[in-house]
Amino acid sequence: MNCEILAVGTELLLGNTVNTNASNLSLLLAELGVNVFWHTVVGDNPGRLAEAVSIAKGRADLIITTGGLGPTYDDLTKNVLADALGKTLVYHPEEDESIRRWFEKSGRQYTENNRQQAYLPEGCVVFHNDWGTAPGCAFEADGVRVIMLPGPPNECLPMFRHRAAPYLRSLSDETLVSRQIRVFGMGESHVEALFREEMEHMQNPTLATYAKAVDVMLRVTAKAKTEAEAAAMCQPVVDRVVKALGDRVYGVDVENLESAALPLLRKTHRTFAAAESLTGGLIGARFTALPGASEVYRGGAVTYCDEVKAGMLGVPEDVLAENGAVSEPVAAAMAQGVRIAAGADIGLSATGLAGPDGDGVNPVGTVFVGLAAEDGVWVRHLTLGPGRGRNRIRELSASHAFDMLRRYLSGLPVV
Amino acid sequence: MNCEILAVGTELLLGNTVNTNASNLSLLLAELGVNVFWHTVVGDNPGRLAEAVSIAKGRADLIITTGGLGPTYDDLTKNVLADALGKTLVYHPEEDESIRRWFEKSGRQYTENNRQQAYLPEGCVVFHNDWGTAPGCAFEADGVRVIMLPGPPNECLPMFRHRAAPYLRSLSDETLVSRQIRVFGMGESHVEALFREEMEHMQNPTLATYAKAVDVMLRVTAKAKTEAEAAAMCQPVVDRVVKALGDRVYGVDVENLESAALPLLRKTHRTFAAAESLTGGLIGARFTALPGASEVYRGGAVTYCDEVKAGMLGVPEDVLAENGAVSEPVAAAMAQGVRIAAGADIGLSATGLAGPDGDGVNPVGTVFVGLAAEDGVWVRHLTLGPGRGRNRIRELSASHAFDMLRRYLSGLPVV
Repeated sequence: MNCEILAVGTELLLGNTVNTNASNLSLLLAELGVNVFWHTVVGDNPGRLAEAVSIAKGRADLIITTGGLGPTYDDLTKNVLADALGKTLVYHPEEDESIRRWFEKSGRQYTENNRQQAYLPEGCVVFHNDWGTAPGCAFEADGVRVIMLPGPPNECLPMFRHRAAPYLRSLSDETLVSRQIRVFGMGESHVEALFREEMEHMQNPTLATYAKAVDVMLRVTAKAKTEAEAAAMCQPVVDRVVKALGDRVYGVDVENLESAALPLLRKTHRTFAAAESLTGGLIGARFTALPGASEVYRGGAVTYCDEVKAGMLGVPEDVLAENGAVSEPVAAAMAQGVRIAAGADIGLSATGLAGPDGDGVNPVGTVFVGLAAEDGVWVRHLTLGPGRGRNRIRELSASHAFDMLRRYLSGLPVV
Repeated sequence: MNCEILAVGTELLLGNTVNTNASNLSLLLAELGVNVFWHTVVGDNPGRLAEAVSIAKGRADLIITTGGLGPTYDDLTKNVLADALGKTLVYHPEEDESIRRWFEKSGRQYTENNRQQAYLPEGCVVFHNDWGTAPGCAFEADGVRVIMLPGPPNECLPMFRHRAAPYLRSLSDETLVSRQIRVFGMGESHVEALFREEMEHMQNPTLATYAKAVDVMLRVTAKAKTEAEAAAMCQPVVDRVVKALGDRVYGVDVENLESAALPLLRKTHRTFAAAESLTGGLIGARFTALPGASEVYRGGAVTYCDEVKAGMLGVPEDVLAENGAVSEPVAAAMAQGVRIAAGADIGLSATGLAGPDGDGVNPVGTVFVGLAAEDGVWVRHLTLGPGRGRNRIRELSASHAFDMLRRYLSGLPVV
């Protein structure tokens, strides 16, 4: 099935909103085996939208629209698509009722213009919206299948996952299963080179590599009559890849390094704290973005100057004076200091130069990441290079801290 | 001039890369007075790219392509566009030479496939690339103007700013100037309601409102023969808006609240530190993303459990026991504690419930944000509501801390 994602919204063309729906839906559609060949964005303009629909009809089997289902006069996706595909819009009282209840629940006033959200193309499958007011739908006309989803990402994505994906799955007698293997500490080209030949010859399951923000993902996808069968086909490939990459694999079907560390902390009943210099709070901010972080993360110190490193963490002033703040002994003392100050089992630390300015001694991108526990202290010395830019150097430093944490908790060599 | 942005790259259709170029270029094109009516994404497929070019030719005056200018076999943008528009590609030895030097400088081996980057459509204006290897270009054919830019955002955006934008400006005898007024603490619909009537009647300059991640932006844009003239036309509107919105305006032509606070700290020779509970390091992480943060930010504590609040910040245990960690007295004690512990002029604090779980007493979204200085302590009590989700509650809490900071430094009422 060849798909076009058609986003409707002037705010996208003005550059005020990034079309993250298109990329997130594309990822989810790939998992369903749907080929996405076109992303299109048009504004809230009936003429240009109608033209875009006519082009999409001519080239795609499946058109997924996002946006333009709301209550205001510029929400025109349903009207234009119904017109273009010869459908009338039908009133759904049960959807209207549910929109009224939504307003009641949130203590706001239902206004009559909200009623238009309950009109949907005749004969469609209604996608009830549990995450907002505007329902979506699916229908077929002129040999093309159309799915309409609301625009706000916090409605669009759950509506896809819980409404459109099951609908699409029901159209096929085959099921796709994907597994995602996450790797830290190797570039994508390196990972790809290891498996290139194998990947080229694979048909079902398939294996592909993707460069993510700070690491690499390999995706194994199999197609079969049942989910269990597809999962069983994936497993030997997952096992082979994990074996080949060894302890650089930090998880299968996990989101990021911090999500891989969280269950390991829980399982081993350990807590951690972080002493952050160049990361400035990023280790804490990334970890506490995870629900349940408070069970295992005690906090820590952001030590953006020497006095705070000495005062809050007890880093000896002579160690600072002798080695400078960007050094292995200071990273070690910070990790040990925060472990004690916060009463945690494990202390992490990061000190270094994110740039743009250097310190006259070390080049920008010089970073020391430390881990202290009851049985030892480890420090990684990184040279991340000034070319990466301030924020990538900071993100990578935080990732290295989480990598050391998950390695320590798994009983692997830490550095 | 009506423009289509045509991005070429399979990685965009797979969802592995978000098309941030389209939104960033749209913002920059709006400043030049160019109307962007379509964003299109196609993969590295010559047939579908040729079709997309043929559609774009039929509806746009200006086509801007991003991506597909590199050295590998799937970099086919130039060939397909030259074909579609009846141009031959011409070798530019000076560009090839500069690509060779780029490789030399970065210590990598120039391979022969890089030579194809030096071929450009006959008669084009060459956009030399100082940020990577592939040059871009601009040309006219069949009544349509084409600009080609490389795909990586760290090349695409400077190439637009320093090459394409001056080229586009040279086509017009008018100049556009935009000013951006940033507002915190009012919703977009509220701001829009205040100026709606005025906005509808304005032609030159124009005024428009935009909802950003945590705040609102108003953009004033004027068109004139010279930049000075356009700037002078903007100024009275800027003054009127700033006067009408009063101290909710946190800056003009600034990026975010923390960027507004940084120069105020410098100017008043103050430093600050932060004690973060629910924000988990986000205040520090956001502030230290700014180059030069180390001059005014001393660090602080991330206190994700009561013991660390007591131990690192000296929050009295009876205050914690009596009021609970999510309370006004604790926010006040945290701000005072971190101010002293980090030896800073100002202490900020944030404690609250980001969810998804509550504490059985306060609803999710209950947040206290504190500021302590030599002349007093202030606490804002926020009820952000569980519907916003964990990460938005955290971002908003950090924004309130920066808003209190910039208000304190400006001599405005803090809460």
